[in-house]
Amino acid sequence: MKTRAAVAWKAGSPLEIEEIELAAPKQGEVLLQMVATGVCHTDAFTLSGEDPEGIFPAVLGHEGGAIVQEVGPGVTSVAPGDHVIPLYTPECGQCKFCLSGKTNLCQAIRATQGKGLMPDGTSRFSKNGAPIYHYMGTSTFSEYTVVPEIAVAKINKAAPLDKVCLLGCGITTGIGAVLNTAKVEPGSTVAVFGLGGIGLSVIQGAVLARAERILAIDINEDKFEMAKMLGATDCVNPRDYDAPIQDVVVELTDGGVDYSFECVGNTNLMRSALECCHKGWGESVIIGVAGAGQEICTRPFQLVTGRVWRGTAFGGVKGRTQLPDYVERYMKGEIKIDEMVTYSMPLEDINRAFDLMHQGKSIRSVITF
Amino acid sequence: MKTRAAVAWKAGSPLEIEEIELAAPKQGEVLLQMVATGVCHTDAFTLSGEDPEGIFPAVLGHEGGAIVQEVGPGVTSVAPGDHVIPLYTPECGQCKFCLSGKTNLCQAIRATQGKGLMPDGTSRFSKNGAPIYHYMGTSTFSEYTVVPEIAVAKINKAAPLDKVCLLGCGITTGIGAVLNTAKVEPGSTVAVFGLGGIGLSVIQGAVLARAERILAIDINEDKFEMAKMLGATDCVNPRDYDAPIQDVVVELTDGGVDYSFECVGNTNLMRSALECCHKGWGESVIIGVAGAGQEICTRPFQLVTGRVWRGTAFGGVKGRTQLPDYVERYMKGEIKIDEMVTYSMPLEDINRAFDLMHQGKSIRSVITF
Repeated sequence: MKTRAAVAWKAGSPLEIEEIELAAPKQGEVLLQMVATGVCHTDAFTLSGEDPEGIFPAVLGHEGGAIVQEVGPGVTSVAPGDHVIPLYTPECGQCKFCLSGKTNLCQAIRATQGKGLMPDGTSRFSKNGAPIYHYMGTSTFSEYTVVPEIAVAKINKAAPLDKVCLLGCGITTGIGAVLNTAKVEPGSTVAVFGLGGIGLSVIQGAVLARAERILAIDINEDKFEMAKMLGATDCVNPRDYDAPIQDVVVELTDGGVDYSFECVGNTNLMRSALECCHKGWGESVIIGVAGAGQEICTRPFQLVTGRVWRGTAFGGVKGRTQLPDYVERYMKGEIKIDEMVTYSMPLEDINRAFDLMHQGKSIRSVITF
Repeated sequence: MKTRAAVAWKAGSPLEIEEIELAAPKQGEVLLQMVATGVCHTDAFTLSGEDPEGIFPAVLGHEGGAIVQEVGPGVTSVAPGDHVIPLYTPECGQCKFCLSGKTNLCQAIRATQGKGLMPDGTSRFSKNGAPIYHYMGTSTFSEYTVVPEIAVAKINKAAPLDKVCLLGCGITTGIGAVLNTAKVEPGSTVAVFGLGGIGLSVIQGAVLARAERILAIDINEDKFEMAKMLGATDCVNPRDYDAPIQDVVVELTDGGVDYSFECVGNTNLMRSALECCHKGWGESVIIGVAGAGQEICTRPFQLVTGRVWRGTAFGGVKGRTQLPDYVERYMKGEIKIDEMVTYSMPLEDINRAFDLMHQGKSIRSVITF
């Protein structure tokens, strides 16, 4: 079949909207009709060419809300008409990782996904016979897309797909980092470094976890209003202080925070986030993705005196098991998504969505098909 | 009163055995008669002058077994005749740290202890009217010493002090790192980097935790026999391989270990210990003390893909609460100490104990008074 898609032909160039070929779903795959997709910094990172694992040409996009159109042989967990969120972190339920009970990092299809291919080692997208690659196993910047069955979470049909699509990445990552990875306890003090979509979602997670104090930290004060609306108790601009931000936070919190979250991808900030943690028990979670080859450093004394350094991917959330409940919590008003949708636009305007993001003017733009 | 002590007059010089003055215990302090003390690398580190916090002249030593001789005003938890192990990590039970339930790092007397002084800001040791400083709040290289009441663990009188003194540091640190800090589960795979007293004690801890596989790693193969005797299942010499040790361990363990422990104080090894952990859940615990100013580094991707970096001091053990039980476990044969005592000698020979340690010929020498 044919599908309208935004194709990334090469790094550093705008996406091009065109009709391309999409092959039918094979064994264990499903064909999705995309209803909406968010545009995330990770898409921009890959498009920029800085992502060493970026493959072109490709159909980018990984924050989708979709309807199952057709299922390939052997598919049992979803059927045409089901509403789903595609998962760049799949959940096969059978690999060593899924069975460990300790991680959401299912490895069942990691090798092919990393190469921009479906599990059988081929792509479903093409143009004039030449393959166009998949991206993160999801490729949501396309009206139709094919994904593995283990990479979709079936959700409540009553949920608006042009909102809950954002649970496909940023919002879930931030909330999950708090609830699943850090396991923040009621009464805790939390510091959030960076107030983009992830950082704002960490604030939401901290509110859900009933943290007592939530410090929102950013050099762009325009972001403080939304941070406060979502539940931040203190907004801190590092540029207002001469001292390093970790010292400022330690001072403001009588010895440091119980939990901190780095939501930018800056390795210096990752160090600050660790070092602003309270001696004896403070835990820091890295969420941001650093540039290729960059390293984090600290004195081992920081850890020997009780701080813990962690990281998280997709908030430690198992997509098929846990994401449907995130959708329910949105429906009940516990998780806020509407407030994060700064712009909504058709696929034709997708390059504008990237521009707005680069200019810091949007939390999330949602593309509708 | 007078006491015979090994005095460290200045960095880099041998200890000198002599009679010095010891003032009576003040409010909240106790006078101890030392029966035995271990000689630990930390003593040597401070004596060498490399410890930036080292203060001279001082009475070093922190692995003691002692009998309470006299108590100062207000002391209620111990009485003359009680057998105790001095604690360089005290336990006041009342500070923010003790009350947190999350750490053993009691801060009640940290400031004065760090300055080589008792909590009132003075020293009990002197010679010809000039103060000699305390060390780690314990100063066990002295026939008599004064320590704060909150810095002694009262233990079973039937326990041999010339053995259980080693529970004052190394053995407890290693076992506690496994049981308290990492909380190793039955069936786990564990890697231990460095087979000195701490590393061997980590092996003991892993056996107590019923780890299934215990990899003992050292470049000195002489240490493998003891490691195996204590329960190591695999002994690995990094020099037998061309690949980095973390790659070797990942290969040997089908993806990495569940827990690793750095017991040397080498920052490169700390990185190896982290990176040999299994993706998704492996946790690495830093026990070794690195040189001043040294830093640990890794790519944040290591953490984002699920590894956790921790550290521990005194194995996370609360001395007054938990150490008496460690003594009982020794009495029942669950914790092995006798095997760790390579040499036993009188105080007069203490410099020989340092020499043997530097030459790698001893796990622990125990000094008896």
